[in-house]
Order: sequence, then C-alpha cells, then structure tokens
Amino acid sequence: MDSNSLIEPLDAILAPKSVAVIGASTQPGKVGHDIFVNILKGGFTGTLYPVNPTARAISSVRAYPAIKDVPDQLDLAIVILPPRPALQAIQDAVARGVKGLVIVSAGFREVGPEGREIEDRIVAICREANVRVIGPNCLGVINPLPAVRLNASFSARMPKAGNISFISQSGALCTAVLDFAADRNFGFSKFISIGNKADVDELDLLRYLHQDPDTEVILLYVEELRRGPEFIQAVKEITCGDYRPKPVLVIKSGRTSAGAQAAASHTGSLSGTEGVYNAIFQQAGIIRVESIDELFDFATAFAYKNESELGKLRRKVPSGNRVAIVTNAGGPGIVATDMTMFSGLELAQFKDETIETLASHLPSTANLKNPVDVIGDATMERYENALGAVIRDEGVDGALVILTPQSMTDVLGTAEAIARIARKSFKPILCCFMGVIDVSAGVKYLQDHGIPVYKFPENAAKAFGALYRYSNWLNRQHLAQYQLTFDRERAARIIKDCIARGKTRLGELDGIGILESYGFKVLPTKLAKTADDAAAIAAEMGLPVVMKIVSEQILHKSDAGGVMVGLESVEEVRQAFDTIVTRGRAYRTDAAIEGVLVQKMAPSGTEVILGLNRYPVFGPLLMFGIGGIFVEVFQDVTFRLAPIGRNEARRMVRQIKGYKLLQGFRGRPKGDIETIEKCLVGLSNMAINHPEIVELDINPLLVHAEGQGATAADCRMILRADGSVSPPAH
Amino acid sequence: MDSNSLIEPLDAILAPKSVAVIGASTQPGKVGHDIFVNILKGGFTGTLYPVNPTARAISSVRAYPAIKDVPDQLDLAIVILPPRPALQAIQDAVARGVKGLVIVSAGFREVGPEGREIEDRIVAICREANVRVIGPNCLGVINPLPAVRLNASFSARMPKAGNISFISQSGALCTAVLDFAADRNFGFSKFISIGNKADVDELDLLRYLHQDPDTEVILLYVEELRRGPEFIQAVKEITCGDYRPKPVLVIKSGRTSAGAQAAASHTGSLSGTEGVYNAIFQQAGIIRVESIDELFDFATAFAYKNESELGKLRRKVPSGNRVAIVTNAGGPGIVATDMTMFSGLELAQFKDETIETLASHLPSTANLKNPVDVIGDATMERYENALGAVIRDEGVDGALVILTPQSMTDVLGTAEAIARIARKSFKPILCCFMGVIDVSAGVKYLQDHGIPVYKFPENAAKAFGALYRYSNWLNRQHLAQYQLTFDRERAARIIKDCIARGKTRLGELDGIGILESYGFKVLPTKLAKTADDAAAIAAEMGLPVVMKIVSEQILHKSDAGGVMVGLESVEEVRQAFDTIVTRGRAYRTDAAIEGVLVQKMAPSGTEVILGLNRYPVFGPLLMFGIGGIFVEVFQDVTFRLAPIGRNEARRMVRQIKGYKLLQGFRGRPKGDIETIEKCLVGLSNMAINHPEIVELDINPLLVHAEGQGATAADCRMILRADGSVSPPAH
Repeated sequence: MDSNSLIEPLDAILAPKSVAVIGASTQPGKVGHDIFVNILKGGFTGTLYPVNPTARAISSVRAYPAIKDVPDQLDLAIVILPPRPALQAIQDAVARGVKGLVIVSAGFREVGPEGREIEDRIVAICREANVRVIGPNCLGVINPLPAVRLNASFSARMPKAGNISFISQSGALCTAVLDFAADRNFGFSKFISIGNKADVDELDLLRYLHQDPDTEVILLYVEELRRGPEFIQAVKEITCGDYRPKPVLVIKSGRTSAGAQAAASHTGSLSGTEGVYNAIFQQAGIIRVESIDELFDFATAFAYKNESELGKLRRKVPSGNRVAIVTNAGGPGIVATDMTMFSGLELAQFKDETIETLASHLPSTANLKNPVDVIGDATMERYENALGAVIRDEGVDGALVILTPQSMTDVLGTAEAIARIARKSFKPILCCFMGVIDVSAGVKYLQDHGIPVYKFPENAAKAFGALYRYSNWLNRQHLAQYQLTFDRERAARIIKDCIARGKTRLGELDGIGILESYGFKVLPTKLAKTADDAAAIAAEMGLPVVMKIVSEQILHKSDAGGVMVGLESVEEVRQAFDTIVTRGRAYRTDAAIEGVLVQKMAPSGTEVILGLNRYPVFGPLLMFGIGGIFVEVFQDVTFRLAPIGRNEARRMVRQIKGYKLLQGFRGRPKGDIETIEKCLVGLSNMAINHPEIVELDINPLLVHAEGQGATAADCRMILRADGSVSPPAH
Repeated sequence: MDSNSLIEPLDAILAPKSVAVIGASTQPGKVGHDIFVNILKGGFTGTLYPVNPTARAISSVRAYPAIKDVPDQLDLAIVILPPRPALQAIQDAVARGVKGLVIVSAGFREVGPEGREIEDRIVAICREANVRVIGPNCLGVINPLPAVRLNASFSARMPKAGNISFISQSGALCTAVLDFAADRNFGFSKFISIGNKADVDELDLLRYLHQDPDTEVILLYVEELRRGPEFIQAVKEITCGDYRPKPVLVIKSGRTSAGAQAAASHTGSLSGTEGVYNAIFQQAGIIRVESIDELFDFATAFAYKNESELGKLRRKVPSGNRVAIVTNAGGPGIVATDMTMFSGLELAQFKDETIETLASHLPSTANLKNPVDVIGDATMERYENALGAVIRDEGVDGALVILTPQSMTDVLGTAEAIARIARKSFKPILCCFMGVIDVSAGVKYLQDHGIPVYKFPENAAKAFGALYRYSNWLNRQHLAQYQLTFDRERAARIIKDCIARGKTRLGELDGIGILESYGFKVLPTKLAKTADDAAAIAAEMGLPVVMKIVSEQILHKSDAGGVMVGLESVEEVRQAFDTIVTRGRAYRTDAAIEGVLVQKMAPSGTEVILGLNRYPVFGPLLMFGIGGIFVEVFQDVTFRLAPIGRNEARRMVRQIKGYKLLQGFRGRPKGDIETIEKCLVGLSNMAINHPEIVELDINPLLVHAEGQGATAADCRMILRADGSVSPPAH
C-alpha cells in the first residue's frame, strides 16, 4: 500500500462527516454511553448515529437497532462491544460501506489466543475492504479543530485546538496528557490512542500527519515499534525530507519488546533494546525526550511559528547555537546560563555596536554582557530596547527572555514588547515568566501570540537546545559516498564452507577471510598444532608474533589466559605454545583445544571495536566504540541499524567520547578516521549480504596514524545456517 | 560563635513577637508599603509597628516617626531604605534593643565599593551588639506556621503551613517558587531569602533549621558557598548526625564563584567549581537536584511521615532498594519500571506466598509479577488487597501505586485504601494518580494524609530513588581508620629546599621523595646528564628501564615525545638519551633540558590518577580516577575536599566507573584497592600538612594485584613559597 492510498481512509477516521457509535448505551458510566455523549457534547460538526439493539434514543438522539438500519452514508464506526459481537458488527459495518473503524473495547490480543484470533479476523476483513482500523483496546481519537470537533474518547474534556498532534500507545497516558495539556493551555490538532495497533500503527499515522496541513509537531508515546529499517526511511522523510519537514518527538519506554537474540558478543550485551531504539531514533531524526514535562516543553517551542511581518509562515529554529539571555534578575540568569551550556548551546558574544546600543538604553548598573541584566526595576521599554539590540546582533541566533515579577514590573507591556520584536525576526525568542499568578496576563498574551513561555529558565534553555538539535539535523552535510568494492562471493564461500563443516563459532582463522572480503586489513595468521609447528610458522612469518588459543569452548580468550603478545624469539614461541595450552585446559577442562594461532604482531594503534548483532524485526545492528578492555567499563559505544553509508558512519565515529583519542591527542598521531568509516560501511554491507552472520565483534580494530589504515587484530563471529533470528522475547 | 548562641537571634527574625517596618510607606506599589501590608494581611500573630517619618498611619495602623518612638520591646526590624538612611536607622534600631534585622533594600555590595562599605559597617555594628542580619538585597522571610504567620516578603500570597523549609540566595526565584508551591499544595515551615548574605548565610540557617522542630526537610537554592570544610562538617551533622537527622536538598547554579587557582594539572582542569561543589555536597550528605520540579518532587517524598498506628512519628525512608509497583494500566507501569531501574532501584521479586495472595484476590488476566497489573477496571478492594500483599512481602522495601482514571474507578475510595495500608507500615508508598481533574478528590485525600502523590510515574520513581539514596547515606558503614605514619619532616625539608632553590615545578626527582614520605611506593630514579651517564645508571639499577626528559618548560612529557619505555639494553639506553634530547629541543626550542631521568621500569598494573588542587575558601581538593591517557577522554574521576579518612577514600574508589577494572575483570587480577585507599589518605595528609603544594598529579599510579601494592610511576607538583591561593575570580 503506498502512502497516498492510506490518507483517505485515515481521513474518514480523523475527520469524518458521519459517525456511528456501535454499542452506544443509555447508561451513564458505561463506556458506550460516555463516548457517545463526549462526541455529542463536544460539538461534532458532522452527523452522529447511535447504534443499540433496544434503545429508542441515546441522550435524546434517535438510535438505530443495527448499523444496516442507519439511513445515510457512514465514514466512521466506533465499536464498543466485546470481541465476538464486535466481529459481527464490524462485518455488517464493512458491508454497509463504512470507511474507517475505531475499536475501543479491550479483550482482544492482549488477553489470550482467542482474542488474538478475533482481532486477526477483523483485520483480515477490513484489509480486504480497504477499511482502516484503529485499536482495539484504545482510548479513541480526538480532532479538536473547528471544522471537525470530534471527541471520540473516554475523556470528557475536548482539548483546545492547536497545531500539535499526539499519538499514544498507552490509553492511560492519554487521559493524563489531556489533563496536563489543559493546565498548560496546550492545543492539539489530532490526538490518537493506537491501542493494540492491530492495523493502523504509529508509522501509518506519522505519514498521515506529515501530509496533514494542520499539524506542525508530532508527538509520539511508544512502547515498541514493529518496523525497523522501513520506519527509519519513512520517518527521515518526515523529519528532514523536501516536503514540509516536521519535527517528531518521542517518549519511548519499556525494555522488554525486542530481546536480543544472543549476547555472546560485546555488541549484543551492550546494545540491548535501548541501543536499537536509540539507533532508530537517531537515524530517523526523531528527538527523544525523557519525560512528559519535557515533551510539552519541547513541543511548545517547536509549535512556535512566525506570525510575521516577514511574509510566509515559517517554523522558528535557530541557525546556530549562540544564545542571548535578557533577564531582570541575576539568579534565574545564572540558571539559564548553566542549562544553556548543558544543552549544547553557547552564550553569544555581542558585537561592540550591540554593547554600545545596550549601554545607551540601560542604567549604569546593568550588565551589558551576556546574560544581559536589565535590573529588577526594568520597564517594558528597557526590555524592548535590550532584546531588540541583541536580536539584531549577527552573532546571536536566538534569545531567552526572563522576567521575574516585581511590584513595578509591567508584565503585560513587556509581553507585548517581546511579541513586537518576535514578529520582526526569524530568530526564536523563548520566554520565562516566573510566577503563576502575578505574570498570568503576560503569559496569556505570549501564548495567544504563539511565543513559547516557561515557568523556569532551565526549561526554556533546554527547549532551545532541542530546537538547535533539530536545526542541526535539518542542516547536516551530506558527503559523497565512498566507492568501495567487496568480494561478496569469497565471503559467501567461506561461510558456506564453515556451515557445511558444522562450525558456527568462528575465530580469526576463518573470520579474517570474511573480513578481508569486506576491505578490512588483517594479519598473517596460521594455526599451530604443536610447539614445533608454532616455532616454524613464527620463523617463517617473522617475529615478533602474538599467540592465541583456538577452542570453540573458549570465546573470551584473554579471560582464559589464552593470549600472549610480543613474542620475540622462536624459543619464546615454543614455550608460549605450552603455556597457553596448559592455561586453556585449566580454564575449562572440557575445552577441545584445536591448537594455537600464531599471528604476526600488529603495528600499534588506537583500539576501537566494531560489532554486529541482529534483532528480530529490526535486522542487523552495527556498533562502534572504544575497544579493548575499556569497552565494557566505559561503554563508550554507539549503534546504527544497517544499512548505513559514509555519512552515518561519520556521525558514529564522531559521536563517541573517545573520538578525542583519534583526533591527535597528547602527542599521539591523528588516527585514520576515513578508514574507520570505510570499515563501518564494509561491515554494513557484510551484514546485509550475509544473513548467516548473526553476531560479530572486531575487537580491537587497531587504528593507525592518518593515511596508514587500520588492522583487525581479533574477531569473533557466530553463524547460523539460515541466518534467521529467534522471535522477540516478549 | 557556637551554634546555640545563634539560635536565639534567629528566632527573633523567624518567629518574632514584635516587628517594626522601617521605611513603611503609604503608597501602594512601593516595596515599603507592600511588605507592610503583606505582614498585616497575612495575619501576623505578634504586634506590627510601621516606622515612617511623616505618615500618621499606614493601612490604618498607627505609624511612628522613628524607631526610638516605638513604645514597646522589638524583636525584629525590617529595613526598606536606601543604604545611607538604612545605616542610620539600623544604628538606632540596634540602640533600641532590636534583636534581629531583615534588610530588604538593594544597592549595597552588589552595586559597588560604596555600597560594600556601608554593608560592612552595618554588619560590624550588628555583630558588636549580637544582632543578626538577613540580607540586604533579599525578598524577606516568611513563617506560615499558625503560631507566627509572618509574611515579611514582596509576595502577596502566604504559603500553606507545612514541614519543609526553603533557603534561597535568589529573591527572584523565591516568588516563582511560592507560586509554584501554591499550585502543588505545598506547605512550608520557614521561607528565607538570604540575598547578599552580609551576616547570616546558608550555614547559619541550616543549623537553625536543624534545631527547628517544625522543619523536616531543608531545601536550599545557592549560587555560591562561602565556607568549605566547616560547611561539610556542620551539614554532615545535620544530614546524618545523632540528633534528628534531616535531609537537605540543594539546587546549585552558577559556574563563576570559585575559580580554580591554576589549571596546569589534570586535577585543576577536570575539577572546576563543579568538582568542588559536588565534593562538598557528597561529603556533607546533601542531595543535589537538577530542577525546581525535581526539588518539589523529592521534597514531597521526604516530607512524608508516618501518621501511624505504629507509635512515634518517623520519616519514611526505605531500608533497601526493592520496589513493588501496583498499577491499573500497562503503559504507566512500564514507564515506572524504566525509571525505577534508572534511579538505582530494583523491581522486587515477590515470594511465592505473595503471589498466591495476589492470585486469590485478582482476576485471572492480572499480572501477578512485579509490576502488578490490577487491570483497568480495578476496584478499591483490588488495590487494597494487592498493595497490602506486596507491602507485607519481606522482599519489598516500598511501593509505587499508579492509578489511571477510568469510568468505573473509585478514585477517592482507592486513595482511602492506600492511606489505610500506609498507616500500618513503615515502608514508603508513593502514588501516581494520573490526571488533574478526574482524580482530584483522591489526590487531595492523599495530600491531606501526607502521602506523596505525583502526576506522572517517572516522577514518583525518581523521588523513591532519592529516598533510597538518603537511606543509603544514613546507613553507610564506618570502617576503622588505617593506622598510617608519615614522615612529615622529610617532606617539609625537601619542599623547603626546592623553594630555596627557586624550583617550583617539581618532576619526579624531587617529587618522589615527598611521595615516599607519605607512604607511596616509588621507583629507583636517577638523573643522567649524558648518554654514558644514562648507560651507567641503567646498568647499575638493572634493566629494563624507562627514560623521561627533565625540563621545567616541558610539563606534559609524553606530548613532547620525551618518554621512552621498555629499554632493554645499555645500548638502547644510550640511544634513547639522544633521541629524547633531540625531541625535546624540537618540541620547545627554548626548553632548558636538565637531563634525562633513568627509572627502573615499573611492574605492570592498572593506571589510576591521584591529584590535588587548591581552591580559595575551600582548600585542598583531592581527585581520584582512571589514569593514563584516558583521564581526559572519559573524565572518570571523582573529587573530595581534604581532609578525608579511610571511609571517604573507599567511597571515592568505588564511585568511578573504572572501579570494574580494579575488581578483577576479564581475567585480570583483582587490584590492590586497600593500597589505593591508603594512598588517598596519605595524599589528604600531605595536602593538609604542606600548604606549599598547590597542585599535584600522580599519573599513573600503577595498581598491582591484591596484596602487592601500587607504584607511583610519574608525578608533577607545583609549589608556592607561602602556599597561598589567589582570591576567587568573581
């Protein structure tokens, strides 16, 4: 189904002209009664038809015994019936030509196999007829816009109309969010509880809301996603595509949705589902928030558009991170400064001319540097002049205005002054009017004029930080892709051969062939069966060498004392062979020791780790981070779902703290970062081409100085014959 | 002044029987009018005397031309006059026998030298007469308790009476906090704006509030502290002493208050003032919070006391971190679970008996494992039975109860049921009733019965985490101190000698003598002036050796390529000498190279860093963390102000992420943690005994296997003749 064919049936659900409530009830307190009354009292602009087998009327509205009795064309049916009667009613509704369904009732998939079966049958019937279904087990849908005014929900209160849409997987959260929103004078465009997501899921709705001219910001509460790479591609189009990009903010909770299929590797044990979801959100350009408060704070900032004497409406995002703060109190200015720095922003440095302008308007005790302190007794003129001066400064990308009420403060006048300046500028201006009562007139004025206003300066500063992150995402650079060639056939041959031999845990000997096929530089490596063997190999390949135990049972070789490095003479090699075998036997008496690898000692370099793990639904997850023994201690790693190209690889490398180590740090040479990026792209290709590789750690990849490449000094790989992944552990 | 002599004059300020308002005004909108009216209308239980040179009465209350004309004994004078007239009025007030002063007016220290001088004179006069002063430049003080009802502030609204006291360095924040508190039905015991802290500061008030029987929780907003070690000692007594320990929560902002005196060392550059403040808060047992929301959320939990059928009132803190969650909705349960884990808590594992009890009371679709889902249609009985069952489980230390309103939910009944169970248990029960409107009756009932209730589950879970952190602090173990002896005289001799030679940047050659005096194991080290010299030294001390450049101008030796390790033969040593000198000259052409150190190569070990830096006011700050080149990349370090003993050293070692590396990790031997602790105690003693050492990095200290000690493999030290530290950079 392409995205356009989705829109129409969803319109029937979210902006219907006629609605039947199947299971409407005369009895107050029953869901079937309350939802009907909520639609009725909410002032729905279309026509409402209660369906009830026995009642004559519900809340004075003529009722129909069955949906087939409704005399007119129906867009939407809302179903409030237990599963079995619901199934029958839905068959009738579909036959009757209904275009969309919202199933509010619970008792389906979430309670057991019988419910699941009914749910599946409903979806099959509806898909056949091109009818879309929201729910079951949901709170309903709300569209408060004046043209529709549909409150098909449990909640008696219709929210204010606005330009923010909210999709929630939890019905319980919906009610709380509606109440919270009412407190904060927050307006919605669409409000949708998706429940079990039997048919319509968050991605369908995200696509719909992307096209929706009345939605500017999309909020999403989700416990699990059911699509991976497809979700990333589609949402990327929404957050930064050519057609009306819109910010998407998400709250994600729940750690049980997509159990990693194995955790024998570092990649598996470090990623977990959090790693997967963070990867998805980052790759899709979704901004993740940590709490409902933050969701509202950020949404307020993103909903902010120019009311503008500057022509066309445009969302206000800063073009840089240099913030000016104007305050009439020191303390809140300091709080704002702290949070500004913490949120990845900078305090702007004013130009001399700006400071001169400030000096001419402000009293001598005022602080003319950023944060500008206009002093407690500031008039609205003082605010207007100061804010005007800093916002005109080319070195300022936006402003935070803080007002704390004092007896002489003209709160409303100051709000008007701020709005005047905001109208003349594309730069975002966020306000903090501290105090609920004294400043309410000003707060209301700002809200009515679409200017974000917060109770505390830290919230305003954090919201500014979110605006900047989004602006950064919109304006990121796109480098040309690397032209790389891989030897897919060779890798496939090695994998096939290993599987044929029943070998699924690959060490370096087999692994390096696969790595080589994808552009990794590896080390001459041979297996020695005896001490003499080892000595001969070492003499031939040249000293110094490294020696490593080979045993299917010993995956973490260094834990077993099975690795010895820097062996400088043939005699040392001979002794090392015996030592390693003895230690291996002591570590695990049941270990079958195949022999000891002799490997040319790698040139030195910064140790990084590259990894791969697979998740059901989401597919291969790639990892990059600081390697060696520090991997688990500092967990300085980052994740992406494959496939990735050069640009995503580049962001991975730059995202970890240890990037510093690769940048030429404390007299160390700069690392070969381009080679890491190429290795990551190679790994991504390997992951896509060979589903048999279910887990892989390359640890360490030794990164040499710029221009000198990198060497894969150790790897572990787990194969599975069919490359399948076990289903998510719910 | 000892702490008891402080109490009485502060009582005169915070619970006066008679108050004069000097500078009371007849003109509404003026501070002198508004504060007077706020006291009057607030229902002050004592007597109020307006002082105004010309007015007959203020708001119908007879006025007095000067303070000497007031006919009765005065406890408190509130001064609202510009600096010069204020000085005169205060002299009169002190002469008149006033016991305390609150100076609201601004224009003192904060505006310049003249204001500062007047402020200093006022303080001198008052100290002489044992009169305590709050302010100037503050919002005032509030005591809403029924026996006093003093609202001597700008704010027209008197907060509710309660058991939480608030001290704020920012007046602006006070107003906003009062408004916010009103919104959240939050009650205060004392509310104090400390302004310039000319006399009374946060520590005086903390001590006062510690003694105050009406205060259970102390909240502090502070931009800078003026006392260091004394503050730690005193506040530790408050947070965990024998006499009525009380939790102290702080919001600290501002990064400019105590500039580090130098940053040539890692310790200096990593600590900054944040390091100092975090050290102070940790050592004092203060809980730092990040936002006003969090401050209120946590305070609500800490204010919670048993209303109890169990006898004596007691604060409810959990004795462990095992939390039970009871919810009637899945989504919020997941959110609560996530935040529970994130806050350092665990989901309790129920005993079989508990699960049986739950099964007998709950429907078959309910989830009997933690989090317990009592299902959307849960009655109050179901909540009562489920909560009762889990709270009785020995493996549960407290509970989070989540209620999301549905049409059949008995919100008030459920609140009553929760309160019944809470009365019978010492275990904390925190609630989340989601929704402002539908659940208000239940929320009010819980609040009236002192049970913490939140809007969103994450806030409840985070607050539980704070309770647990405090419980952990109260119940921490105290190990017997190490019996260590140090050679203070030897260290003093070396330092004196270096200073006499004008040598203030010490490398290892001088530094190791000082380290040795404080129990550090160091390496045989000699200075070579020539390559032959180096060869001879190496031959004598035994190979392998390490060689390091010695130059006052080259502080970061490895940056200059001035360190070579693992030199195995005399010939290598000879060559290394020349290489190092050549590199040093290339790195800094002006460097005076004294020679090259030849040092016995250290046995291997985990690299940690110990450091010391000094701050004005606060004194020596100690650092511990993962060393080597990773110091700056991961900044895995922690700080404490000296002096510290074994227990604080122990907490430092355990606090860093890299502690894992010392615990025997991935086949590595367990590190000698006791020796690190002893080294930290030695460093603390060194810092206290020798103020001449202003900076010190020991990096790396190589920690060997358990029982085998640690070796200081490199150090850098900066001395100053008088050990003084430059004043704070404001």
